[in-house]
Amino acid sequence: MSSPFATNMRFKFPALAISLQIILIILFGIFVRYDTNHEHGHENITAEDDTFITLYPLFQDVHVMIFVGFGFLMTFLKRYGFSSIGINMLIAAFGLQWGTLMQGFWHLHNGKINIDILKMINADFSTATVLISFGAVLGKTSPIQMLIMTIIEIAVFACNEHLLSFLEVSDIGASMAIHAFGAYFGLAVARVLYRPALTNGHENEGSVYHSDLFAMIGTLFLWMFWPSFNSAIAEPGEHQERAIVNTYFSLAASVLTAYAFSSLFEHKGKLDMVHIQNATLAGGVAVGTCADMNINPFGAMIIGFTAGIISTIGFKFLTPILASKLKIQDTCGVHNLHGLPGVLGGLAGIIAAVMGAKENVSAAMQSAGLASSIGIAVSGGLITGFILKLPFWGQPPDQNCYDDSIYWEVPLEEGEQENHYEEGRNKIKIES
Amino acid sequence: MSSPFATNMRFKFPALAISLQIILIILFGIFVRYDTNHEHGHENITAEDDTFITLYPLFQDVHVMIFVGFGFLMTFLKRYGFSSIGINMLIAAFGLQWGTLMQGFWHLHNGKINIDILKMINADFSTATVLISFGAVLGKTSPIQMLIMTIIEIAVFACNEHLLSFLEVSDIGASMAIHAFGAYFGLAVARVLYRPALTNGHENEGSVYHSDLFAMIGTLFLWMFWPSFNSAIAEPGEHQERAIVNTYFSLAASVLTAYAFSSLFEHKGKLDMVHIQNATLAGGVAVGTCADMNINPFGAMIIGFTAGIISTIGFKFLTPILASKLKIQDTCGVHNLHGLPGVLGGLAGIIAAVMGAKENVSAAMQSAGLASSIGIAVSGGLITGFILKLPFWGQPPDQNCYDDSIYWEVPLEEGEQENHYEEGRNKIKIES
Amino acid sequence: MSSPFATNMRFKFPALAISLQIILIILFGIFVRYDTNHEHGHENITAEDDTFITLYPLFQDVHVMIFVGFGFLMTFLKRYGFSSIGINMLIAAFGLQWGTLMQGFWHLHNGKINIDILKMINADFSTATVLISFGAVLGKTSPIQMLIMTIIEIAVFACNEHLLSFLEVSDIGASMAIHAFGAYFGLAVARVLYRPALTNGHENEGSVYHSDLFAMIGTLFLWMFWPSFNSAIAEPGEHQERAIVNTYFSLAASVLTAYAFSSLFEHKGKLDMVHIQNATLAGGVAVGTCADMNINPFGAMIIGFTAGIISTIGFKFLTPILASKLKIQDTCGVHNLHGLPGVLGGLAGIIAAVMGAKENVSAAMQSAGLASSIGIAVSGGLITGFILKLPFWGQPPDQNCYDDSIYWEVPLEEGEQENHYEEGRNKIKIES
Repeated sequence: MSSPFATNMRFKFPALAISLQIILIILFGIFVRYDTNHEHGHENITAEDDTFITLYPLFQDVHVMIFVGFGFLMTFLKRYGFSSIGINMLIAAFGLQWGTLMQGFWHLHNGKINIDILKMINADFSTATVLISFGAVLGKTSPIQMLIMTIIEIAVFACNEHLLSFLEVSDIGASMAIHAFGAYFGLAVARVLYRPALTNGHENEGSVYHSDLFAMIGTLFLWMFWPSFNSAIAEPGEHQERAIVNTYFSLAASVLTAYAFSSLFEHKGKLDMVHIQNATLAGGVAVGTCADMNINPFGAMIIGFTAGIISTIGFKFLTPILASKLKIQDTCGVHNLHGLPGVLGGLAGIIAAVMGAKENVSAAMQSAGLASSIGIAVSGGLITGFILKLPFWGQPPDQNCYDDSIYWEVPLEEGEQENHYEEGRNKIKIES
Repeated sequence: MSSPFATNMRFKFPALAISLQIILIILFGIFVRYDTNHEHGHENITAEDDTFITLYPLFQDVHVMIFVGFGFLMTFLKRYGFSSIGINMLIAAFGLQWGTLMQGFWHLHNGKINIDILKMINADFSTATVLISFGAVLGKTSPIQMLIMTIIEIAVFACNEHLLSFLEVSDIGASMAIHAFGAYFGLAVARVLYRPALTNGHENEGSVYHSDLFAMIGTLFLWMFWPSFNSAIAEPGEHQERAIVNTYFSLAASVLTAYAFSSLFEHKGKLDMVHIQNATLAGGVAVGTCADMNINPFGAMIIGFTAGIISTIGFKFLTPILASKLKIQDTCGVHNLHGLPGVLGGLAGIIAAVMGAKENVSAAMQSAGLASSIGIAVSGGLITGFILKLPFWGQPPDQNCYDDSIYWEVPLEEGEQENHYEEGRNKIKIES
Repeated sequence: MSSPFATNMRFKFPALAISLQIILIILFGIFVRYDTNHEHGHENITAEDDTFITLYPLFQDVHVMIFVGFGFLMTFLKRYGFSSIGINMLIAAFGLQWGTLMQGFWHLHNGKINIDILKMINADFSTATVLISFGAVLGKTSPIQMLIMTIIEIAVFACNEHLLSFLEVSDIGASMAIHAFGAYFGLAVARVLYRPALTNGHENEGSVYHSDLFAMIGTLFLWMFWPSFNSAIAEPGEHQERAIVNTYFSLAASVLTAYAFSSLFEHKGKLDMVHIQNATLAGGVAVGTCADMNINPFGAMIIGFTAGIISTIGFKFLTPILASKLKIQDTCGVHNLHGLPGVLGGLAGIIAAVMGAKENVSAAMQSAGLASSIGIAVSGGLITGFILKLPFWGQPPDQNCYDDSIYWEVPLEEGEQENHYEEGRNKIKIES
């Protein structure tokens, strides 16, 4: 592969990955400790301990969403499953370490970051923003570019999150801070990395039967565990329970409208896997901001109902417009799954604030939080895009987009298997 | 597609799905509230809160069984994976909302249904009955028919469940109330929807290598989390722990006998994936009724041992007879996984009652519970079958059975990919 | 199939499986009871109960690792998915019952084994050793051989575990007792079962695109839930939390180095799925022994960093040498995932003991524990290998290795489907 596409990663990628890991270890050595509220040698279970092990199952649910949920959701492409799962894992494993630092620096205790279960949940959360953005540029970027995006995006995310916290914005399920932020960050990156040659699609930019089934593994684990995502860091008791209940019913409602509108948009009324894989999740995104508010189950269902509709409409009508008019090629449609429902979630939070659904929540501050999340995301994404456009990060040439074989050793396909079999047969001495 | 098979769902399906969701939102607005035992502003963790978050992991296990377990278990068919996973999700998402109402109406507090974790677990349970019945008619029904079946079956299920509760029947893991009920309801529907043209099978009514692996995802998540299913609503402490322990060992025993009998029935002693995917789960079904009783681990193992055998025998000898003599075409063999082991579970409960394995449990009432569950299921299923037979629900014609492409946009297959690739190549301007 | 390969399992396998299950039921009847610390009729939740339900989510995580994690990890072979998942399930379901007895016999109370949640976790653990060994001989053994290996290996494992406990060796995540033990046991078996005809590989000993994706399901569930594996039986509170935190960060670090070295070793810098599926998990294995020690997060990350490197090096350079020089054909590379990182974990434990990272831990005893685990494993494995070499266990002939169809009814492949379809079409009377 000749320049300007230096896609051979042999030395650049290992050097970057190992350097980053060594830097992380040094910074962890300086800054990161176990949570020190425990007395050494004191072995009774304290309330603090209790929180750790009580929230641990919710942490694990979020963990599954990050690694299996996001990972498999992106395996829908016919020849890009290794990258979807594999680069997802790489981003998340690096991102959770980096996120621990970036978020922890805003909350030092005696110059140290004390790791508890909430820090781990938040570290996982910080990787979610990058995985959402990854969906917008899926198939068109190199692992090196994704590591660099992770570094920048998590740093910017932690700043925005701190700003929201300073403004006392209520966003327990992070419709704004994670979903809208991740989506608009990724769309801004995709805008800068626009590829004119892919305007009319690409032969690999589609699914096959089995890849759509693999993607449903991702969809279902995201769908099932979303109540944990929206409640994991909520105040224990009433608020946490509400967050679980509201998310449970909002998701259920968005399934019905996603299916209905998917069928409505096809001339024979057939269902489209793209909508089922994605728009069914919109209820989880959109109910995020008000998940712990007193909106009642039917309020949550109205949010989910609406989210399923706008998400499906987005896939059907907005994605083509984004690509043709705004030159934003959004591979996974993150705008429809995270962007629009994230904004809807922010707006729902403003309305809920006006209606007094949670104490001490101001509609003005909620609005500021939504504007801040989108504004900072777009700015950060544009800058990141220009950095990623530099010619030495190993970006794939157009014809190798959506193709695992440029960065992965790929086994022979079913069709090619036959020859391999014949060769193999000759090589082996069989004793029967 | 000409009548009498009006399989074009374009307006019927969206209209039905949206109407149902709007009705649900209105009914939830009138009847459903958060659990109101909390004092507003009181933020200490009460015992009640503790129950919610303590049982939440068990709820999530059940949730995984419903959406991933049942969903993937049915993906064994070669060209029906989208429907298996997708219609499973649709039924469950609609059913959990509908089930909340149908079960809640029997337990109103001041005219309201107060949502707590047990209500959510029970809502998931109510969908399980429909998903079991779905297995009996898989591949031969439309999404519209399945929504209608869900409406009726959950209503009937809630009545039977209330009757069992009134009779003080002990059925903690719902061998009778869910498994036998769901199976016989589905078999009755299948009887009415009998298709003579499918007597000799259908070209799509089989598995391929990969579809059998997808189905094992379902099997394993059902198998692993079955102890949660059987214990989730048990009395905390001793009874709940027993339910977990008994189910753990019963399932293990049924694996050994399912494998043994699968091998025994093939003339070269080979294992059959149908048995491994299903009969290994029979131990979980059959131990359900006495899961929280004092039957000791070896008692649970005897139940599992027996269940694995009768389930495998059912697949080998009974399914063909059901199809040829009774005209019941049971696609997934739910009679062998849920019907027979469910009845076994009911009988085991009667014996355990006689032996005094749980206080205040009467063998007579247990017998009444088993009879009621089967009788109401068969009646309800027959009526439902006749309703579903009406010609305007979009039922697929015989030759399109077991085929996703009638209700789903299906991507080109591996074989067809080649042409698509060539076309794609010509369409795109490549700059290298 | 002529002798000496009597691969027809029809009577041998069922007879063995049923006999074993009957023996288990009898032994359980004699020895196994529910945990009897509960007073009958006393229904308050005691501290004991609390432990059961508090640890239950961690047990379920371990359970998922055993059945889905180990099972799917081995599905990478193109035509051996049924066996990988299916025999994994068989071994685990038999092994957890057998392990309950073998471990319980060392801790009888009044002649009884009282089942609590820790006993169940340990029973699952005991099966992990066999599943690791299974990986070394995958594709070259019969289900009968695997049942026999399970009987012997779990018995030997329980003895070694008891010895380690007697020596007061600290090995909370079982780097030595499970991972090194299982690996060297399996390698010793593989050495005895060496097949010269497979020296140059076998046509089925490779992956296809989809089988590598299935294997990633296994990898990810192992990776995510490893913190539960390393902490499930740790002392509640500080130690348990440390085990979770340390494992979380160690795993993350090993991902970065596994990816880096995988790329470094390929001449175009491409990533290899074998490394990604396996070496990313090495951090979990290697941090096991010191998981609950005060090594700080950066200490855990150094262990993970190193483990990812040595594991990838092992796959690249050591596996071929083992096969050619030592005549050990290690199908899944368990030496690189469990053997080397297990030894690293043992050494890290010795260093941590010297540095005083946990009270009452002696470097000498830690060394003795490592030596004992490897020594007993190799001895036990060699003896087991000679037993398995006896000609009547149904071992497959060389040309049928790595092929499901020798022990499973396998559906027609995609390529063969076409004919089947045509035949099917003729068989069926279609009414449209």
